[in-house]
Amino acid sequence: MDSNGHLFLDRVFGILKEETSDQVPLINFKHPKELEEILRDDLDISQPVSDCELERSVRKMLQYSVKTNKAIFRNQLYGCPDHYGLAGSWIIEAFNTSQYTFEVAPVFTLVEIKILKHILNLFGIPEGDGIFSPGGSISMLYALVAARYKAFPIVKAKGMRNLPDMIIFTSEDSHYSIRKAAHWLGFGTENVRLIKTNDLGQMVMSELDTAIQKELALGRYPLMVNATAGTTVLGAIDDLEVAADLCKKYRIWMHVDACWGGSLILSSKLRNRLKGIERANSISWNPHKMMGVPLQCSAFLLREKGLLHEANAAAAQYLFQQDKFYDVRYDTGDKSIQCGRKIDAFKLWMIWKARSDTGLERLTDHVMEIAEFCLSAVARKDGFKLVTVPIQCPNVCFWYIPTFMRNKVEDEKWWETMHKITPKIKELLTVSSRLMVAYSPLHHHKNFFRLAFTFHPVLDEKQVLDMLQSIEECGEKVTLSMLQI
Amino acid sequence: MDSNGHLFLDRVFGILKEETSDQVPLINFKHPKELEEILRDDLDISQPVSDCELERSVRKMLQYSVKTNKAIFRNQLYGCPDHYGLAGSWIIEAFNTSQYTFEVAPVFTLVEIKILKHILNLFGIPEGDGIFSPGGSISMLYALVAARYKAFPIVKAKGMRNLPDMIIFTSEDSHYSIRKAAHWLGFGTENVRLIKTNDLGQMVMSELDTAIQKELALGRYPLMVNATAGTTVLGAIDDLEVAADLCKKYRIWMHVDACWGGSLILSSKLRNRLKGIERANSISWNPHKMMGVPLQCSAFLLREKGLLHEANAAAAQYLFQQDKFYDVRYDTGDKSIQCGRKIDAFKLWMIWKARSDTGLERLTDHVMEIAEFCLSAVARKDGFKLVTVPIQCPNVCFWYIPTFMRNKVEDEKWWETMHKITPKIKELLTVSSRLMVAYSPLHHHKNFFRLAFTFHPVLDEKQVLDMLQSIEECGEKVTLSMLQI
Repeated sequence: MDSNGHLFLDRVFGILKEETSDQVPLINFKHPKELEEILRDDLDISQPVSDCELERSVRKMLQYSVKTNKAIFRNQLYGCPDHYGLAGSWIIEAFNTSQYTFEVAPVFTLVEIKILKHILNLFGIPEGDGIFSPGGSISMLYALVAARYKAFPIVKAKGMRNLPDMIIFTSEDSHYSIRKAAHWLGFGTENVRLIKTNDLGQMVMSELDTAIQKELALGRYPLMVNATAGTTVLGAIDDLEVAADLCKKYRIWMHVDACWGGSLILSSKLRNRLKGIERANSISWNPHKMMGVPLQCSAFLLREKGLLHEANAAAAQYLFQQDKFYDVRYDTGDKSIQCGRKIDAFKLWMIWKARSDTGLERLTDHVMEIAEFCLSAVARKDGFKLVTVPIQCPNVCFWYIPTFMRNKVEDEKWWETMHKITPKIKELLTVSSRLMVAYSPLHHHKNFFRLAFTFHPVLDEKQVLDMLQSIEECGEKVTLSMLQI
Repeated sequence: MDSNGHLFLDRVFGILKEETSDQVPLINFKHPKELEEILRDDLDISQPVSDCELERSVRKMLQYSVKTNKAIFRNQLYGCPDHYGLAGSWIIEAFNTSQYTFEVAPVFTLVEIKILKHILNLFGIPEGDGIFSPGGSISMLYALVAARYKAFPIVKAKGMRNLPDMIIFTSEDSHYSIRKAAHWLGFGTENVRLIKTNDLGQMVMSELDTAIQKELALGRYPLMVNATAGTTVLGAIDDLEVAADLCKKYRIWMHVDACWGGSLILSSKLRNRLKGIERANSISWNPHKMMGVPLQCSAFLLREKGLLHEANAAAAQYLFQQDKFYDVRYDTGDKSIQCGRKIDAFKLWMIWKARSDTGLERLTDHVMEIAEFCLSAVARKDGFKLVTVPIQCPNVCFWYIPTFMRNKVEDEKWWETMHKITPKIKELLTVSSRLMVAYSPLHHHKNFFRLAFTFHPVLDEKQVLDMLQSIEECGEKVTLSMLQI
């Protein structure tokens, strides 16, 4: 960085401080066309601008951007970035490098090794291997590729054509990335079997057993069971012990998608909810979700050491030369599907170094306590109706029933109205900048809210009550006439 | 961010300024085991540390990290991050959000649309579509998936098993990511045909023609021709016009891997080297390489609008609800294989906004002028021997022949010695912190140097001469005894 660069970054840092301060609203919502109009000149890149003009545009654009650092941003399974992680991300951006070889990333290579080792220990597979990938969906690709390669190493050279029909098992509540992965990797989405879930959102293991037996009887190859630890909507954790038993019985690759719920491993009180995960062949975990590592930080872990390299290596001569002057076992990049790869491990390392196991455990327990508090508040409050109890991850799902809808027969028509009310409340919450919260239908359930909690420096019970009050107040503003029915 | 966070980030910013200043050396090389020892306590995450201790560790770790911002970092096809891009990356990290829906990323969605439109225009496919992906290798996956889906839409549901044998054509000098992609997507690496290159590193088009005819005669399905615009080592650009003609003749998907050379599109003087690219079905371009956008920024472009969404959409109910209160056509995330996706577009937008087409053209021309200057300096200097002339991208490839090796018969044994000399010079350059430069063998060529140039605020001819002098001086230090032969 030259001094001009420093000055500019200094001023941008100033803008960032102001635009992420307590005073600014969560969101200043404008509809797409309107926002395009407001920012027309700012977005324009046809003419060069001075640094001052650029700063002015950036400031204005950030005013219309969502402040995900606020506790009332509950729209996704991520939220406020941890400031240690943010510092880590600024460092890796400034040090602009790639995680493939020791020579360009000596320290960052050691950091990745260190943090992976620590995580592998936590998850109970200390002799395993791992890699950081750009998100949970790519980690899902890694899992399927590893499972397939282990079953049929010939796939690397020959492809899928002459292999048996392979079947992937997952719950109907699992993340959609598995269907995208099934398409990309050549399995086909029809070879993904969606196993029914119970009322809590957990895979019904007897159904899984039956489904496996059925595929075996049809002569198909059961490749992988994807158990979910923390489903996207309900936060359900599949019974990993039983999943492991079934995988052992039928010799199937067991993957655990712990992208969301994996963070419970940080708490000695909560980690028993993940019991059985230590028997998995592979695990994916996104510290960028509950833990607040800035996007993206996704760890893919593997029980069998060496497999990741064997499956993925292409031994590029220009990059992974074997006649280098240092120990090339520290060139870890050929395990990856990527060539250039961001140093996501460092952000996580920064947080861990600053907070240690003890601090992270406290934060995890706190998030779960807040979610439990929210759950009981929702259970108590008039007009609120829970979708599921108990909860396993910090997801609280419920409807808000406005007064004019109460004490009526909850028939199909009533539910159809509720289905329209939830998005309408969400709209009012958003445009009034009071709360950003997710909603979703699920199976026979009509649109409901999901309040999911993540590590946050100031998240407390008072704020949770405020969130519920916001929902109540916006909910009461909804009238039949607004719903156009 | 709270005020504690600000203070910590302030101090980290201070460390960054110091550790990327002109005064610090390029690299303080230590072998892996030695570095592990030096940083043992710093890497350790078993105990909580104070902010002061953390800062001390970070500072020390950065002292052993490579300063890729220096002009003498010529080790990869990326280098000094543009400070406008760096500001952009700091902003997106602080605003921690994902590019999937308009509601969480309203401004960033418009930014991506804007910059994609601009790029699509530049590449001559104004009606096309695109997406930012985490690197060129993932963009290669996108290309193959799009080509396959276009040819056989049934692949999404049914997989690869009942489809014809598909063949992928690429040059032997093309990037290894295509082989990794062939494995992952289920084609198999043996279905990648490596077409011979000429002395400049360009695909021999007559060989491509013959290869396609051969596969057709064998009843196989020629799926994609991957033409390269800027090979990794030599920087060769395939004849894209002829490639387009052949693809048209045989109705094959034409992809151009312009990850490296695509930046030439920014210059009206140089863009004719890419002629024919406007006829491609898809293009990948990594602005994080030559242009200095901080890693990662890779654009995948597609001629046919709508295909990306059709191929990749999974319509997750919890995220891409169709009953939202705004125009959901602005929710662009279902085009992606990722769910959470970083806002890479914003870094590029910052640079473009600040520098505009005009400024970027000047930087592109400058990089090419510097490379041409380097080329002629290498051609003139005693002991230097070029691998290829002329060059198409700013890659200059050559051997340095120490005095003791000169005026001898260049037989096999002589070349074997040269093969060992190049890595030895590289070692001396690295440990003395004078220059980090790539080396590679290629075909019958024994290990040679590749000096590749990227946008840099202070890169000038004097520095190029210094680099060559460093190579010369370290080259002269190499003796037969060092090579252990």
